[in-house]
Amino acid sequence: MRLNPVSSPLLTDLYQLTMLQGYLEHGMTETAAFEFFVRKLPEPRNFLLTAGLEQALDFLENLRFRPEELDWLRKSGLFKPVLVDYLEQMRFTGDVFAMPEGTVAFPNEPILRVVAPMPQAQLVETRLINLLHFETMVASKAARSVLAAPGKLLVDFGLRRAHGAEAGLLAARAAYLAGFAGSSTVLAGAMFEVPVYGTMAHSFVQAHEDEAEAFEHFAESFPRSAIMLIDTYDTEAAARKVVEIAPRLAARGIGVKGVRLDSGDLAEHARRVRRILDEGGLKQAVVFASGNLDEYRAHDLVAGGAPIDGFGVGTSLVTSADASSLDSVYKLMEYAGRPRRKRSEGKATWPGRKQAFRQTGDDGRFRGDVLTVEGDTAPGEPLLRQVMKSGKRAEPSPPLTAVRERALAQMARLPERLRTLEPAEPYPVQVAPALKALAEEVDRLTR
Amino acid sequence: MRLNPVSSPLLTDLYQLTMLQGYLEHGMTETAAFEFFVRKLPEPRNFLLTAGLEQALDFLENLRFRPEELDWLRKSGLFKPVLVDYLEQMRFTGDVFAMPEGTVAFPNEPILRVVAPMPQAQLVETRLINLLHFETMVASKAARSVLAAPGKLLVDFGLRRAHGAEAGLLAARAAYLAGFAGSSTVLAGAMFEVPVYGTMAHSFVQAHEDEAEAFEHFAESFPRSAIMLIDTYDTEAAARKVVEIAPRLAARGIGVKGVRLDSGDLAEHARRVRRILDEGGLKQAVVFASGNLDEYRAHDLVAGGAPIDGFGVGTSLVTSADASSLDSVYKLMEYAGRPRRKRSEGKATWPGRKQAFRQTGDDGRFRGDVLTVEGDTAPGEPLLRQVMKSGKRAEPSPPLTAVRERALAQMARLPERLRTLEPAEPYPVQVAPALKALAEEVDRLTR
Repeated sequence: MRLNPVSSPLLTDLYQLTMLQGYLEHGMTETAAFEFFVRKLPEPRNFLLTAGLEQALDFLENLRFRPEELDWLRKSGLFKPVLVDYLEQMRFTGDVFAMPEGTVAFPNEPILRVVAPMPQAQLVETRLINLLHFETMVASKAARSVLAAPGKLLVDFGLRRAHGAEAGLLAARAAYLAGFAGSSTVLAGAMFEVPVYGTMAHSFVQAHEDEAEAFEHFAESFPRSAIMLIDTYDTEAAARKVVEIAPRLAARGIGVKGVRLDSGDLAEHARRVRRILDEGGLKQAVVFASGNLDEYRAHDLVAGGAPIDGFGVGTSLVTSADASSLDSVYKLMEYAGRPRRKRSEGKATWPGRKQAFRQTGDDGRFRGDVLTVEGDTAPGEPLLRQVMKSGKRAEPSPPLTAVRERALAQMARLPERLRTLEPAEPYPVQVAPALKALAEEVDRLTR
Repeated sequence: MRLNPVSSPLLTDLYQLTMLQGYLEHGMTETAAFEFFVRKLPEPRNFLLTAGLEQALDFLENLRFRPEELDWLRKSGLFKPVLVDYLEQMRFTGDVFAMPEGTVAFPNEPILRVVAPMPQAQLVETRLINLLHFETMVASKAARSVLAAPGKLLVDFGLRRAHGAEAGLLAARAAYLAGFAGSSTVLAGAMFEVPVYGTMAHSFVQAHEDEAEAFEHFAESFPRSAIMLIDTYDTEAAARKVVEIAPRLAARGIGVKGVRLDSGDLAEHARRVRRILDEGGLKQAVVFASGNLDEYRAHDLVAGGAPIDGFGVGTSLVTSADASSLDSVYKLMEYAGRPRRKRSEGKATWPGRKQAFRQTGDDGRFRGDVLTVEGDTAPGEPLLRQVMKSGKRAEPSPPLTAVRERALAQMARLPERLRTLEPAEPYPVQVAPALKALAEEVDRLTR
């Protein structure tokens, strides 16, 4: 059977359906509150940048089982009619509270809360984590390159080694949201208006008998935007070829936008190539670098003064290579009006519906957060707001450019130590007395 | 604009389209041969297991631009009409040669070759890498758990932390192909007939006032297949509750299939729980373990004799956490009848269309491969075969169960040192004299 993984509600864990059947058979359809949060930061991260809410809300608004999916469930022999009949008419009718996309977040803070009848709230777990986890992970990774290479043009080049189609697409969105200039992924331009960037591949040079001819052909096709890839054979020799053909092209009104380096000692090549371009009258041509780059390499190249104007960051970004997952979970916090808590060894949770408040210091920087029960107050700004009411968005989504501005503003307000690539003293998140008291009460009541 | 990342041809790098325009404007539409291969193994891998060919062939057979996609390209202002007009009528009409899915492979061996008019062969690069890279990476990772925990039931639990929808779906397929018993991902069952497995989550226990009641409810809903999650509060206490309710359930014809451990010292809990179950008359009940498991943990638990019957492996599997990408590329090897070669520092390639031959020793194990030019011969079995002819599959795809059998048979024929989790002396892949001679000739001819 051919189905679309991006939209099929069968993209879920089997246990969601088995539990649903259990809930339905025992009339457990009262209101549940689940929260999505990250238990702890991966070692090389000082903060999270939230992303994926937009896709999560799309998923909830459009959740429905199609006839062929219901047929498969019926024929699978795994379930009773009570489940399939329920799924046939099910729509998501719950409320959702969340941090806006592009918010700086820390461990144990609820990033999103679902309040809905238990079967609905349970069923959506897998895909909600799947979406929020991935985009938040990539945005948090991308933010590091943005902080490490201020003022440089950063472009996501990762689609080919992203984990499948949706990962490539959403990584482009998450990276742009976190401050990248854009992506090479055309579909991200078409779907999310992410600015798209591209140069040429080695194959274009190799397909020509002559490297200079390849450059001329490319420039003729893109008379205002051609960036030449110059490392196919000999980087400096290729830079000289660019200088050589430039006057001929200029006479025909064709400019050379720049060159791309993709291998070898990038700092050294950049210096030599910059000199060749400058001496050859191409002072305005940019030098763009790529090839196994990440925030550390970008930082070192910038710190070393390499004359590089922009970086293509690929695999390390879209796979978040140094931390390819976050310890993110979606946990039951309340059912039928009573707070709940998991006490598994090393995995205990704070019970109940929660809110986080963030205080700002006199310097405009974030100073510390307080985690407490919903309804309690604490100094500072509350971070969660209602984003969905009875299954519909509470308000139209902001444009992605606005989310990006918010993200950059949030990153600017981080304490300086958290804005470096080095592991820093953690940001303080206090647990309020009201929340501690609730946890004790829940423990007392749970057999 | 809403498009489907899994099927939209706009899921590509911008430079594919810019190069296409360049090729079209300069009449460079002759036949090109590109090969997909992995340049080197990640440190913790001794071999690759190929996967993803099925999805790659689907992609090629169904490649076409839809009116709304062509409209977007026209309105983007990035391209000339020559490109968009070409894309409007373009279909993939090329030939494809590949290793069958479930083949053991090594660095520099062509896993897939595309032979097609240059614009087609170029355009498909991004998505072909995206598909072959991901499934081969996950299959190669999954194979390690299969080798580390022989005879154990291995189930993919990774969907929630997979990188997006397609990654979750295809990881389930790749893991099954490599010898896992199945997956928790329902859609993998519906689309690929991967056996699906599931138990219950902590939320099901927490939603009940009483843990034993949660177990009873679950068993009533699944009278032959209920596996109880017993670590929500106190693992051994929960195991005793299972023993306590079992006779009541048995009287009603309801069996307890087993229990799942998800936290703490799994070996120690497994021993204690096994004893409680055995002494309580539940000798047939299985003990299933999960929670941040990977092949190393599974190996240690098995080696230590922990009484665990099966393992749920999640995040580490689907993200291939210790090597979240492969150094995989798709490189131009021939254009217009002439072999091509890239010489970039540290990234040089062997030119021309290639074949790999594999020799088997007297013990039935693979002994060594020879990489040579197509048309040359070498001892052993050739690894690439034609799988697509003029844009259509050369033969129907084998069922996934047959691919899985092939994969297991291939793994059984690996030299013993490569079947361990430790980094081993690399498998020998020789470059034949004919290929070396070709490389020298190409170097001589390339300016």
